[in-house]
Amino acid sequence: MKPSVRYVDHRQLVRFVADLFVRSGLIPAHADRVSDCLVSANLRGVDSHGVARVPIYLLRLRKGIVNRAPEIRVEKRSAGVSLVDGDNGMGPVAGLAAVEEAAALSDQTGIAAVAVRNSNHYGIAAYYLLQLLSEARIGMTVTNAPATMAPFGGFQAFFGTNPWAIAAPAGRYPPVVLDMATSVVARGKISLAEQHGEPIPQDWALDPEGRSTTHATAALAGAMLPFAGPKGSGLALFADVFAGVLSGAAFAPHIGDLYRNLQSAQNVGHFFVVINVEAFMPAPLFAERMEQFVEAMKSGSKAEGHDAILLPGEPEHLTSQERLREGIPLTPAVVESLALEAQHAELEMPPLSEQPVRQ
Amino acid sequence: MKPSVRYVDHRQLVRFVADLFVRSGLIPAHADRVSDCLVSANLRGVDSHGVARVPIYLLRLRKGIVNRAPEIRVEKRSAGVSLVDGDNGMGPVAGLAAVEEAAALSDQTGIAAVAVRNSNHYGIAAYYLLQLLSEARIGMTVTNAPATMAPFGGFQAFFGTNPWAIAAPAGRYPPVVLDMATSVVARGKISLAEQHGEPIPQDWALDPEGRSTTHATAALAGAMLPFAGPKGSGLALFADVFAGVLSGAAFAPHIGDLYRNLQSAQNVGHFFVVINVEAFMPAPLFAERMEQFVEAMKSGSKAEGHDAILLPGEPEHLTSQERLREGIPLTPAVVESLALEAQHAELEMPPLSEQPVRQ
Repeated sequence: MKPSVRYVDHRQLVRFVADLFVRSGLIPAHADRVSDCLVSANLRGVDSHGVARVPIYLLRLRKGIVNRAPEIRVEKRSAGVSLVDGDNGMGPVAGLAAVEEAAALSDQTGIAAVAVRNSNHYGIAAYYLLQLLSEARIGMTVTNAPATMAPFGGFQAFFGTNPWAIAAPAGRYPPVVLDMATSVVARGKISLAEQHGEPIPQDWALDPEGRSTTHATAALAGAMLPFAGPKGSGLALFADVFAGVLSGAAFAPHIGDLYRNLQSAQNVGHFFVVINVEAFMPAPLFAERMEQFVEAMKSGSKAEGHDAILLPGEPEHLTSQERLREGIPLTPAVVESLALEAQHAELEMPPLSEQPVRQ
Repeated sequence: MKPSVRYVDHRQLVRFVADLFVRSGLIPAHADRVSDCLVSANLRGVDSHGVARVPIYLLRLRKGIVNRAPEIRVEKRSAGVSLVDGDNGMGPVAGLAAVEEAAALSDQTGIAAVAVRNSNHYGIAAYYLLQLLSEARIGMTVTNAPATMAPFGGFQAFFGTNPWAIAAPAGRYPPVVLDMATSVVARGKISLAEQHGEPIPQDWALDPEGRSTTHATAALAGAMLPFAGPKGSGLALFADVFAGVLSGAAFAPHIGDLYRNLQSAQNVGHFFVVINVEAFMPAPLFAERMEQFVEAMKSGSKAEGHDAILLPGEPEHLTSQERLREGIPLTPAVVESLALEAQHAELEMPPLSEQPVRQ
């Protein structure tokens, strides 16, 4: 029998994870932000970027490879642009500061860009954009990441699976939120196949000698492939041009690995663009036009195997609705790793239940 | 025997095509811009967006569906944003005005966005960005287009194959220029397969009943598929949110077809973002970092079947170098259609040669 998941209330999980970070020396305001970012990923069903990352985040903090009390600083500012030094703090701290800065600038100029250097893993890209959408704002963000993906035409890991995220409010409908890695699939899916001893499709990754492979272990030792060949590779490249080259952060193979390099700072870079809808048209008109767009798209005939035409971010929104009600399911491995951290920090685990909580 | 191509000097082709447009009533300054845009596509090897479009462009001008003497006007402006009314003129005219406006604004603010409504087909997206790259600027543009592509989960044409283009200068290397449709392949490849009576791969398109098809004719009557499923579909959607919804242009299925609708204006929209590198770091430092990036990427081990790791835009740059030297190859069909237009306009065709011209 498969060991079963345990469900936890998201508020209790946020509190618990924040407390863990505080016990490892992170200042409380930052602990709250990092915890909220991680649990938001779980709420949206992106468990690979959720509290499963707590142990490695804590380890890096405790080892002092990540700065526990960074001073996030705007190094350079013009009317619509800021360059932020993340001071080697937690990614979500620098990321939230940057997106708030971009939103404030865009109120004056209509569009603003903020680049961040000296940062760390920032979780799910969509998280930052979701902060913006109560106002009439459209957001875009990219980040770079340690090399795990081959460029089109090559076979060595060079890019991260550098994600692109774009989000816009849609009136009375949930915001439209695209958040996609530039690889064919998330690396987590290959790890999962390895755990289960299952083969992978041969277009996902290359082995260390550059051959197509259906073996998960060989794939993990080799390189992920970008989606749609030169297209995904080109988008990964430009994510790195914006987040790495232009920000002054490390880029491509120079970014430290989150798990394997426990000696030096990652120097990850992020990039945010915020657009103030009001610079183009009144916000209510934009909302109305987005509603028309959504309705037209959803009313089309459904393809084989599809009950509905879902907009980008709609599956994650539906998962989020469910998990807000029923709790977040944690795998046995995640429960175990959190329990170890709780013990280490002398904290109590949040209540776990065997069944979804109907509220 | 296959009928052979004819080669034409690009400068003579630009002159001839501009003259054709003037004879159809386009004001000369606009004729030069449209002609340069079309021939640039041919130079880069994107022949589907080159002078093969001359007959339909001319037809729409002569019928008065496109405005021959538009007054391109900034309707709304804030520090970093302008909204441009293309006055139903030729796409390249509005597009060039918009990208120049965005560049000028970005000199003040660091980043600027310009949306265009009331426009028409604007050719290759990369064209506009290539205007920027002598200065230390990074550009991005998207456009919408008549519905030919199904959204992920649907099977009716809803989006255009809405392209994304991004370009950055790279110091002593050619600029890095990504210009990609959001469909699996260009529609032109399916037309070509139809002409040759060849099957197409079954992931390119759906037939009118929404089934996968290898028949080119059925595919052309049905809908193109987005690349990488929800990813290409999501990018097509956001191209339309920026270029259509936010600009005030038509969007999704409301855009008039270039070929089949000869009654009404298309009301296509475009969107441009320009970033001034100097707002982030000195231009020479950015150039140096881009050179390091290019060198690191190209020095990686090559995948099976690849002699080199090419950057986005590099194949087009190489083609362009060749065609600047040897002339632009025109297919017999294109030669014939241009000859008909020449006859109609009482103009002489530019000199054509049977062999590439070695200069």
